[in-house]
Amino acid sequence: MLNHPARLNQKKRDGGELSAAEIQDLVRGVVDGSLGDAQLGAFLMAVCKSGMTSGETAALTLAMRDSGRVLRRLGARRRVDKHSTGGVGDKTSLLLAPLVAAAGVHVPMISGRGLGHTGGTIDKLEAIPGYRTSLDVATFDTVLGDCGFAMASAGPEIAPADRRMYATRDVTGTVESIPLITSSILSKKLAENLDGLVMDVKVGRAAFMQRRSDAERLLHGLVDTGASAGLAVTALLTDMDHPLGRALGNALEVAEVARCCRGDGPADLVELVLQLGSEMLLLAGVDRDAAAARSRLQALLRDGAVAASWRRNIERQGGDPRIVDEPARLGTAPQRLDVHAASAGFVADVDPLRLGHAVVDLGGGRRQPQDAVDPLVGIELLHVVGDAVARGEPLAVVHARTVDAARQAVQAVAAAMPIGERPGVRAPLVQLRVAGRAGG
Amino acid sequence: MLNHPARLNQKKRDGGELSAAEIQDLVRGVVDGSLGDAQLGAFLMAVCKSGMTSGETAALTLAMRDSGRVLRRLGARRRVDKHSTGGVGDKTSLLLAPLVAAAGVHVPMISGRGLGHTGGTIDKLEAIPGYRTSLDVATFDTVLGDCGFAMASAGPEIAPADRRMYATRDVTGTVESIPLITSSILSKKLAENLDGLVMDVKVGRAAFMQRRSDAERLLHGLVDTGASAGLAVTALLTDMDHPLGRALGNALEVAEVARCCRGDGPADLVELVLQLGSEMLLLAGVDRDAAAARSRLQALLRDGAVAASWRRNIERQGGDPRIVDEPARLGTAPQRLDVHAASAGFVADVDPLRLGHAVVDLGGGRRQPQDAVDPLVGIELLHVVGDAVARGEPLAVVHARTVDAARQAVQAVAAAMPIGERPGVRAPLVQLRVAGRAGG
Repeated sequence: MLNHPARLNQKKRDGGELSAAEIQDLVRGVVDGSLGDAQLGAFLMAVCKSGMTSGETAALTLAMRDSGRVLRRLGARRRVDKHSTGGVGDKTSLLLAPLVAAAGVHVPMISGRGLGHTGGTIDKLEAIPGYRTSLDVATFDTVLGDCGFAMASAGPEIAPADRRMYATRDVTGTVESIPLITSSILSKKLAENLDGLVMDVKVGRAAFMQRRSDAERLLHGLVDTGASAGLAVTALLTDMDHPLGRALGNALEVAEVARCCRGDGPADLVELVLQLGSEMLLLAGVDRDAAAARSRLQALLRDGAVAASWRRNIERQGGDPRIVDEPARLGTAPQRLDVHAASAGFVADVDPLRLGHAVVDLGGGRRQPQDAVDPLVGIELLHVVGDAVARGEPLAVVHARTVDAARQAVQAVAAAMPIGERPGVRAPLVQLRVAGRAGG
Repeated sequence: MLNHPARLNQKKRDGGELSAAEIQDLVRGVVDGSLGDAQLGAFLMAVCKSGMTSGETAALTLAMRDSGRVLRRLGARRRVDKHSTGGVGDKTSLLLAPLVAAAGVHVPMISGRGLGHTGGTIDKLEAIPGYRTSLDVATFDTVLGDCGFAMASAGPEIAPADRRMYATRDVTGTVESIPLITSSILSKKLAENLDGLVMDVKVGRAAFMQRRSDAERLLHGLVDTGASAGLAVTALLTDMDHPLGRALGNALEVAEVARCCRGDGPADLVELVLQLGSEMLLLAGVDRDAAAARSRLQALLRDGAVAASWRRNIERQGGDPRIVDEPARLGTAPQRLDVHAASAGFVADVDPLRLGHAVVDLGGGRRQPQDAVDPLVGIELLHVVGDAVARGEPLAVVHARTVDAARQAVQAVAAAMPIGERPGVRAPLVQLRVAGRAGG
């Protein structure tokens, strides 16, 4: 006399393995509303506690993909994308998409917004005056065909099951589950109809997974589930114990990407872009080895092809392409305050979590999903961990809406960047690489 | 940035122990609606999987009790009640309440309805023409004061948190959890403001807990949580591998109770009533030892005191008291069909689960909580397990609304009562007794 969802919940509760058909029933219920909130909450908690086999995770991922539309292929071009689990100062997508597109690969990039200390690609793009991130599928395809890449937020037609499931996980304490995280990420990426996906799994203080063991489990889950679901995934485990690059805050980050296009980007950011980009070219079959791919990408950065690729996309998505060469057109926040070193010594640490929260406090990020963001506020780092600094030397510049907010941020940045007698050190940027194969 | 319920869910998910204050917050949210369905579903599943300490279970029980009204004491009379986990043919409450009340103890009995193969006291009572089971608290108190017992369904003022939690458990696959079952039962019993509770934990095919180990865990959970919550609970583990008594179906069961009042009840039913009743008198302090209590109850059964006690209550609750002496006034179903033994031999089994489902199929029970029940249909057993029978001898009588329903039930009863070469045996009626102490 038990209803079908209750029976499936019981089965998962008791450690049973759900069939693909049973998982499809559940996901259908998520979308058509026949699965009640209580049933969905209980199911998500059962998955958190009982886990899922790789077969179940792949079935869930595919059912979530098939809850919506799958983008169509455009001609014979290879399609790859990159996705990151999120961090502080991570603007790699903004550079990678035009770079890999300039190498002749289609990059259909559907991204998200920031929440908490973690930034989001869509928020950064919206710091570009006029840039539209909400594209219908036809427009997305047109932009992708014309520019080689398109960047948009997921509309209601892309994996709608994920929308309800994610919102439910958020309020029920069921976010931290490898199968649920994996299926949420991959369902949307599979909807892009890709030949390959590069996953940037962050690890460290400001990462979704702070512990190495958790991050590795997620990384392997993504590679394995991708393989089961027919998607080749190459995953890099990368450092998020320090911010990436030197700009934090949406417009400041766009400006930093523009500097990268002029060969003036911070070393860590450029290095990560080259490594992620090389993996994308390998997945696309453009190059056979990483060295060749890296040379190709370096040449594209040097000869202005990336800047041209980016300008073309910005124009097609309604933005002002002049910001690539004149980032001042992004605007500036009314208040700027320097953060000074309280003593001479070395930068002992740069805490990305404190800095990320400071950007949120400035109004540049969200506490709740419905919050508005101020694109112009943020923090420019003038030093990174290990740098020697003189007493009173500027460590960073705060960009704020008000003097009070600026002063508060100065305090926070000073606490996030302690000066010590010995230079702090940073973990290696890329700590692990695992390459899967579709169907493997 | 996580909301409070999500944090509590996470804590329970990760095996943490919730404080009494945290549990009170959750239960408050259950009643005022601030805890969403998804959050409640996820919480219930987390409890299913992570369990609860005895302290948590007691805190949950008390918070659920305090979500509603606690009945007031009426003078100095001791108050005890009996609750069963449910079975087939279990009409003990109908006899126990007038019996124990006749011994001078107050029995404020709040009961439930049947669902599936399991019968419910309220349904049985409603087979008595005119009998009202929905009493407001003031009327309940008046009847209790006048008769020494009152019998009613739980109104919205009694443990309202349980109502929402139980409905949610039912649809989410989170029914089978010792802490959740325990708190659901005891919160309503604590609201009766008792001096003691006798728990009849059934074990066997037609019991809520089919396996002995599960039934024992529940039994100990009830005794221990009662002790922590300030209620002395004596629990008996009793057989539900066979139906109790010989009447199945609401009016038929009331008639069987009436026969017990005339000294003509089935042995197993009378024995269980004497054992449960003795425990109630011991808890109430009426007698010091079980033998004295048993003698007292036997005398009350013999001398007509029970019948008088029952008639008084039926009259006060609006029913026709003449049914005690003239059960034919309960009415009869239009169709009766005998079930005949297909061969000579012994009754090898009497399967209570098949019989319970047959009663539901006749319309005498519910598939869904909102279903109506037909009070007059059911099954009268003419033989019990182990009886020798001749070929063609009647084994049982089916009482049905239609000929088709009767024929279908005859098939089901024949399958439930196979005849073999050797007599089947029945497990002992009472298999374990555990007595707790309030505050122990």
